[in-house]
Amino acid sequence: MSEQRCRLPGWRNKLMSAAQAAELIDDGMIVGMSGFTRAGEAKAVPLALAERAHSTPLSITLMTGASLGNDIDAKLTEAGVLARRMPFQVDTTLRRAINRGEVMFIDQHLSETVELLRNKQLGNLDIAVIEACAITEEGGIVPTASVGNSASFAILAERVIIELNLNSPMALEGLHDIYIPQMRPKRTPIPITAPNSRIGLPYIPIDPAKIAAIVLTDGYDSPSNCKPADPDTQRIADHLIEFFVSEVAQGRLSNSLLPLQAGIGTMANAVMEGLLSAPFEGLTMYSEVLQDSTFALLDSGKMSFASGSSITLTEECGARVWANLDAYRDRLVLRPQELSNHPGVVRRLGVIAVNTALEIDIYGNVNSTHVCGTRMMNGIGGSGDFARNGQLSIFITKALAKDGDISSLVPFASHVDHCEHDVDIIVTEHGLADLRGLAPRERAPLLIDNCADPLYRDALRDYFERACARGGQTPHCLEQALAWHQALERDGSMRVFSSAGRKPDSIDKN
Amino acid sequence: MSEQRCRLPGWRNKLMSAAQAAELIDDGMIVGMSGFTRAGEAKAVPLALAERAHSTPLSITLMTGASLGNDIDAKLTEAGVLARRMPFQVDTTLRRAINRGEVMFIDQHLSETVELLRNKQLGNLDIAVIEACAITEEGGIVPTASVGNSASFAILAERVIIELNLNSPMALEGLHDIYIPQMRPKRTPIPITAPNSRIGLPYIPIDPAKIAAIVLTDGYDSPSNCKPADPDTQRIADHLIEFFVSEVAQGRLSNSLLPLQAGIGTMANAVMEGLLSAPFEGLTMYSEVLQDSTFALLDSGKMSFASGSSITLTEECGARVWANLDAYRDRLVLRPQELSNHPGVVRRLGVIAVNTALEIDIYGNVNSTHVCGTRMMNGIGGSGDFARNGQLSIFITKALAKDGDISSLVPFASHVDHCEHDVDIIVTEHGLADLRGLAPRERAPLLIDNCADPLYRDALRDYFERACARGGQTPHCLEQALAWHQALERDGSMRVFSSAGRKPDSIDKN
Repeated sequence: MSEQRCRLPGWRNKLMSAAQAAELIDDGMIVGMSGFTRAGEAKAVPLALAERAHSTPLSITLMTGASLGNDIDAKLTEAGVLARRMPFQVDTTLRRAINRGEVMFIDQHLSETVELLRNKQLGNLDIAVIEACAITEEGGIVPTASVGNSASFAILAERVIIELNLNSPMALEGLHDIYIPQMRPKRTPIPITAPNSRIGLPYIPIDPAKIAAIVLTDGYDSPSNCKPADPDTQRIADHLIEFFVSEVAQGRLSNSLLPLQAGIGTMANAVMEGLLSAPFEGLTMYSEVLQDSTFALLDSGKMSFASGSSITLTEECGARVWANLDAYRDRLVLRPQELSNHPGVVRRLGVIAVNTALEIDIYGNVNSTHVCGTRMMNGIGGSGDFARNGQLSIFITKALAKDGDISSLVPFASHVDHCEHDVDIIVTEHGLADLRGLAPRERAPLLIDNCADPLYRDALRDYFERACARGGQTPHCLEQALAWHQALERDGSMRVFSSAGRKPDSIDKN
Repeated sequence: MSEQRCRLPGWRNKLMSAAQAAELIDDGMIVGMSGFTRAGEAKAVPLALAERAHSTPLSITLMTGASLGNDIDAKLTEAGVLARRMPFQVDTTLRRAINRGEVMFIDQHLSETVELLRNKQLGNLDIAVIEACAITEEGGIVPTASVGNSASFAILAERVIIELNLNSPMALEGLHDIYIPQMRPKRTPIPITAPNSRIGLPYIPIDPAKIAAIVLTDGYDSPSNCKPADPDTQRIADHLIEFFVSEVAQGRLSNSLLPLQAGIGTMANAVMEGLLSAPFEGLTMYSEVLQDSTFALLDSGKMSFASGSSITLTEECGARVWANLDAYRDRLVLRPQELSNHPGVVRRLGVIAVNTALEIDIYGNVNSTHVCGTRMMNGIGGSGDFARNGQLSIFITKALAKDGDISSLVPFASHVDHCEHDVDIIVTEHGLADLRGLAPRERAPLLIDNCADPLYRDALRDYFERACARGGQTPHCLEQALAWHQALERDGSMRVFSSAGRKPDSIDKN
């Protein structure tokens, strides 16, 4: 079995245990590891490193593609290994350490990390730890369920540790398309012209002399924690599909729409699943993560091709897909995240970007990352790569959070990841606001009427009207702009501004 | 003379006065006009339209490349012609009308306007009014000192009015490179691989049947109001050049740097002029507007080529350049702003983007547009196109404004155009902060120490320390986050927070 997976002559000389390989990582190193949306992360070496750090403290800068599974970020955090972490994470333990200021978290556009690294703007990568399903005769690395930043990490690192996962499906070989943009100023156009363009190699080409260790592993990716759509999520999907239908009717989109991108998670997955019963055909994806909905669309024949950087599935969907990967392989490609998220390619293809917002202000500025403007949730991820450059930039959110204590629509965003220029469409369970071609003063009433929860609409209108009376392109009452967030921090709720909770004097001022 | 400029057979049949041509514009129309950074705007028809509107009221949606000269925006505003205006402006009269809510201003990334228009997301363009230096045998339009959005406006509009400017230099012909990306989903890569790539035609190809009027004109572009560098501006230039030298020394840039972009105005121009005495050779520009400094660098031999979308010069520099345009023509190209600012090309070339900030928060979020978060200054322009996608994103500003009443560094940005992910380097007269690879908590002390004016440093440090005590990835004290702006609105000054003006109790809290 391992002979078929590892075709590099003399590879057995590089075999090590995870604990031995972890010894190659020294205190203070910059380390790049595979892993993107809980898919294809190195599993054994990071855990061995955490183990080791409990007895011999050490800390590193850890770069990955995006989030890791198997509690690796939690275990590294608990062992004090993470001095610096980039460009994304979703782990509760790590999140707390970040918000305590113990781990320096560098939140980045997912397309940019390896570009910065290649240009020596993030230091030198000492070592890369990459999960592989196979190693070719020349030492090329065949990744597993994600490419993420693995290709550039392996190419740029001084040494490479490969985790050869004996339980990864051999059918993964041939799925990946590895292309690395040339160094500037000699860079030529990236030749992707459609989601199904294949432009590179099916493996990561590296000098085999750099392979410092091969570790045999057998772990599995953590399954997606994506949940079935609840009624509000279903309404969001319905509003969005009704909008697509109307765009087709008005000749702004064809019946196969344009390549779709969907952020990770339950809400974006539900929107994509809504396309199963929609009247579109020949759909494609040009996205980061391929979730259950992608495979449902491929199975239904509604979708003809999906390009991503990773595959993250629930246990149920994974059982079906991984056992039958050959059946999908002609309709899938996994690319480096630099390309799946590339601004130029996203602009060229005219991607329809669907991402989840944490909060949105009445003018359509979006906060994707910071609770109350201060506490990091996950990170900006790829949302900025797609929202800035796609043909349609859509943000979805439920109008309320925390059982109504939080309105997702607020007078003033406590943090801005996507400025109003990058936001075309907002959808909540209450409806859709089409903000294209509108000035801020036109955006606000539409957003409040169509998207805000009725519980908070009066207060938002009241704020907007009082702000307009003061003037400006984007009117605000600065002394009250963050009052909703202050209430949330103070009382654990924004309800003092809800129709039920508003004080008479604030209503009178209207 | 006009036979040489207008080679379209039968063109005299289309000749009209500006007043007659203005009659083609009806109330409620969407109109696209040439003009970018006060260069190459249609001059006669808009003024005739303003004249007409004084007697017969009408209002339109006006799209341009960027800002107009010759007080056209002021006159159109005064005549009540502008119901809607996009994507940029710099006019005092128009700005006031925007901030009163009388003109709906749609502030856009300059690369995006025609993309939206092409995709029918901004309605149908009824008419285009384009200044030309010549009309070819086939009816092709040779633009004057700017391309801006003129090419797509002329191609997409139902009818075209051409202002043939008899005083524009004939040597302009051959300077332009007109290329229009294909409609999606059939778009191929834009083949620009260097600032000097020529990929299109030297004129705008249109169906001559669409030419509804040709108006002969003889006006001049308004000269640039760029001023010589004052000592603070010179210090900003010095800090930035010292940084470039250090980047070259560390192998992160070559001695010809990378293609340079500089925002419009005195400060960006001064930085570019600083390169005259710097040790770099073979510089290039890939920018929007080519200013005096570009020609000084070309004259000195330091710069080999400059690509832009317009040429905007002071009276003195203009006299030299326009009379000798042939001498520069091999080293210049003017492109549609969709290409000069294209996210994919900017990423490919790795542009060094130098733009001016209005205010910057302690974490490096940049406000380019809104005074006190509400009142529009000019617009985001192309800053987002370059800052997001370039290899280095640099923002420059003086640390103080209004004689010290305003600190450009504030605890919390009152409006965000460029989120911290898009901001690498900040420079003020006091110094430079290199924010690359740093987490927000690391960015703040660096920004405060290196860039803030000493008058406000203590208060910024005090805020930061108190915010850190509360926790978070991006710590804030929400109830005080906008206090500096409230003071400015209330007292006309932030000095209550300056070292001189701070109240003892706010110091004690530290």
